[in-house]
Amino acid sequence: MYKTIRMNLLPLSIIASAIGLFVISTPSEVFAAADEDGGVVLEVLLGLIVILIAAKLGGDLFERFKQPAVLGELFFGILIGNAYLFGFTGFEAFKTDLTLEILAEIGVIILLFQVGLESTVKDMLKVGPTALLVAVVGVVAPFLLGLGVTELIAPNESIYVHIFVAATLTATSVGITARVLKDIGKSQSPEAKIILGAAVIDDILGLVILSTVVAVIAAANGGGGVSVGAISWIVAKAGLFIAGAIIIGSFVVPYFFRFGFVLKGRGVMLSFSLLFCFVLAYISGLVGLAPIVGAFAAGLVLEKVHFRDFVSRGEQEVDHLIEPIATFLVPIFFVRMGMQVDLMTFANGEVLWFAAALTVVAVVGKQVCSLVIFDKTINRLAIGLGMIPRGEVGLIFAGIGARLTIGAEPVVSAATYSAVVIMVIVTTLVTPPLLKWALMRGEK
Amino acid sequence: MYKTIRMNLLPLSIIASAIGLFVISTPSEVFAAADEDGGVVLEVLLGLIVILIAAKLGGDLFERFKQPAVLGELFFGILIGNAYLFGFTGFEAFKTDLTLEILAEIGVIILLFQVGLESTVKDMLKVGPTALLVAVVGVVAPFLLGLGVTELIAPNESIYVHIFVAATLTATSVGITARVLKDIGKSQSPEAKIILGAAVIDDILGLVILSTVVAVIAAANGGGGVSVGAISWIVAKAGLFIAGAIIIGSFVVPYFFRFGFVLKGRGVMLSFSLLFCFVLAYISGLVGLAPIVGAFAAGLVLEKVHFRDFVSRGEQEVDHLIEPIATFLVPIFFVRMGMQVDLMTFANGEVLWFAAALTVVAVVGKQVCSLVIFDKTINRLAIGLGMIPRGEVGLIFAGIGARLTIGAEPVVSAATYSAVVIMVIVTTLVTPPLLKWALMRGEK
Repeated sequence: MYKTIRMNLLPLSIIASAIGLFVISTPSEVFAAADEDGGVVLEVLLGLIVILIAAKLGGDLFERFKQPAVLGELFFGILIGNAYLFGFTGFEAFKTDLTLEILAEIGVIILLFQVGLESTVKDMLKVGPTALLVAVVGVVAPFLLGLGVTELIAPNESIYVHIFVAATLTATSVGITARVLKDIGKSQSPEAKIILGAAVIDDILGLVILSTVVAVIAAANGGGGVSVGAISWIVAKAGLFIAGAIIIGSFVVPYFFRFGFVLKGRGVMLSFSLLFCFVLAYISGLVGLAPIVGAFAAGLVLEKVHFRDFVSRGEQEVDHLIEPIATFLVPIFFVRMGMQVDLMTFANGEVLWFAAALTVVAVVGKQVCSLVIFDKTINRLAIGLGMIPRGEVGLIFAGIGARLTIGAEPVVSAATYSAVVIMVIVTTLVTPPLLKWALMRGEK
Repeated sequence: MYKTIRMNLLPLSIIASAIGLFVISTPSEVFAAADEDGGVVLEVLLGLIVILIAAKLGGDLFERFKQPAVLGELFFGILIGNAYLFGFTGFEAFKTDLTLEILAEIGVIILLFQVGLESTVKDMLKVGPTALLVAVVGVVAPFLLGLGVTELIAPNESIYVHIFVAATLTATSVGITARVLKDIGKSQSPEAKIILGAAVIDDILGLVILSTVVAVIAAANGGGGVSVGAISWIVAKAGLFIAGAIIIGSFVVPYFFRFGFVLKGRGVMLSFSLLFCFVLAYISGLVGLAPIVGAFAAGLVLEKVHFRDFVSRGEQEVDHLIEPIATFLVPIFFVRMGMQVDLMTFANGEVLWFAAALTVVAVVGKQVCSLVIFDKTINRLAIGLGMIPRGEVGLIFAGIGARLTIGAEPVVSAATYSAVVIMVIVTTLVTPPLLKWALMRGEK
């Protein structure tokens, strides 16, 4: 009986999702009525319902085409976010809902924590030199290529625009890659460790570039010279945080969990693990890094041995306990990431050409990384591909550029911003299938 | 070695919590810097950190005194919410943070879903008549007593004030009781089923009373007569929802999970369970009931048999998977509930007298419930005590009263509102120890 159902499921998926979208297609009434406290909760509940449906149907549909589930979540997110183009209004509110945004952020924090839990500090140190090399090349190559391309395409723009656009090409957004690696069960492979290590280093390098560019532009506006001291301090803070989190963390964690072990009450081990994750994510944000860097570091530091006492009195391992929380929260991040894609940005022909050039540079630039890996057992192609997505990091860069001005003009114009957005979308969407292909080919 | 630690842990708990509060005692800087996107996420992360620490230390401290953990969460919440009285500023922002509020709401929805999962529809129908009787008596008795007391204490106020205050006394907030029952492992007892059933019916009755009172006041303001039709429609909607959720739900759920079973991708069973819970909570909110009523109904409808296919292919039971999500989210609700307690309301002597009278009536009124239970095997005292807390439902009533006006005056004055708030606080705080005592005495 299940066999019959399974055979008919592909069209069923599509029909069910269409019905689902239609049934709840007038949520705008709810938002109009949302002036009282209860209404806001209902808005978020509706958002969660739509996201859960989209995530599961999207995941199912794409897994049937042998694609990672995350691509389905992104794709159905794009459908919801652009439903107004097809006459379904009311979904736009989910794009800007602050609570859903923060739930999504907590989701990606949990995801990187989970991925961190699967590795140890020792594992990461082993790939450290390779990851450092990959990160540096993966920043320098796209930056230089980006400068060249913007010089060619937009020679009339100022050098600051060129620098800023080139800077947006350097970022690596590790959320998508981490998720794909998890989806296909490869998050403990050496490739995964190099990519994740390089992404953490990239985040520090990105911070340096961003601070430098902003300081250079401030200097151009007559706001004083570039302070090497200030930039060194930014780098020092970030570096100190990573080193401190790992060294102090490894020292403190056993005492922390030994204290937790004697506390009465249920769920202490999970609560303490989340607490450790949130504290490092928070400090990470305070020093200017992405909170996910801290969450990943927290996962690296925590090891099975810390939970030994809890497990020996019959509690489940932490990675088992985190899984249901991830099942709930992680898809919110990816569906919402899809929702942010505005298909109308693809309508402008001129922007599209610029975007195409940027995307090619973005992809090619990161492939240079693979040239610095000399270990033949490592899947070099997978590493280059895993570094492709720019995700929200690129958008944050471009967003800051759009707010900065030289004289009266914004550094990043609306058209340039659109081109960057398209580059981010395309790099994000091409990564899951490419990465899966690179890691799985030759297997089976 | 653990023994030594355990002996020293009581003072250690207190010191650690004091240090914890002190270390993070200047979060206000963060909020000042929270003008960019990242800042809001950091604010919520800090809120989660503070809440997790408070919940675990509070739970530990109170369990050492043989009290339910939830009382510790409430108590540490009160400390955080009123830390400014002791010179620790910056925590006030957590009280009004919208995201934390919604996370708390999702937390209590998950809690009631969990409690619902532990019972079946059949169980609830068995106690149905008793629960109905308990609910009706538990509404009528406090209402009449409330009218009498306000007549005595505030004879100069209009009859509408008396009616409104009396109405706030009828509510039953089941969150606290459900949590205490879970904390002490009694959520499957017959007493638990009667209390929860009565609380659901109470929610419908409360809706009726609120609508009636608001309509009567509108009529007094010359806004037309009381429409019996409109009120009947409100009742019908609520009743139809409960009946519909259970009947249609029971019919649809097997197909829903059979569809889910053939979907590819991980975590489908948990996602579908959450989806069902959120949909019923959402509809429940749309028809004017509390979302937790829908969540509870969803839990009742779902039964082990629906998950049989998933479990037989090696997945865990849903109640196991929900537990970590509850561990994360449920304490947010109770710590935040504590934070909302403003100790300054206790400073006004006259208000305090009125509050004391209301509290006595609130407690005594619900004890009348126990008189209508004739089954000698039932712990009647526990049922009366379990119905005591007014929680957020009482506050919502009073809040609506404060917004309504007769002529130019608000129906519920600021002083009366304070008295209601104190009544809500006291009924909430006395329930956990009393209920635990009533259910556990004679055991051991």
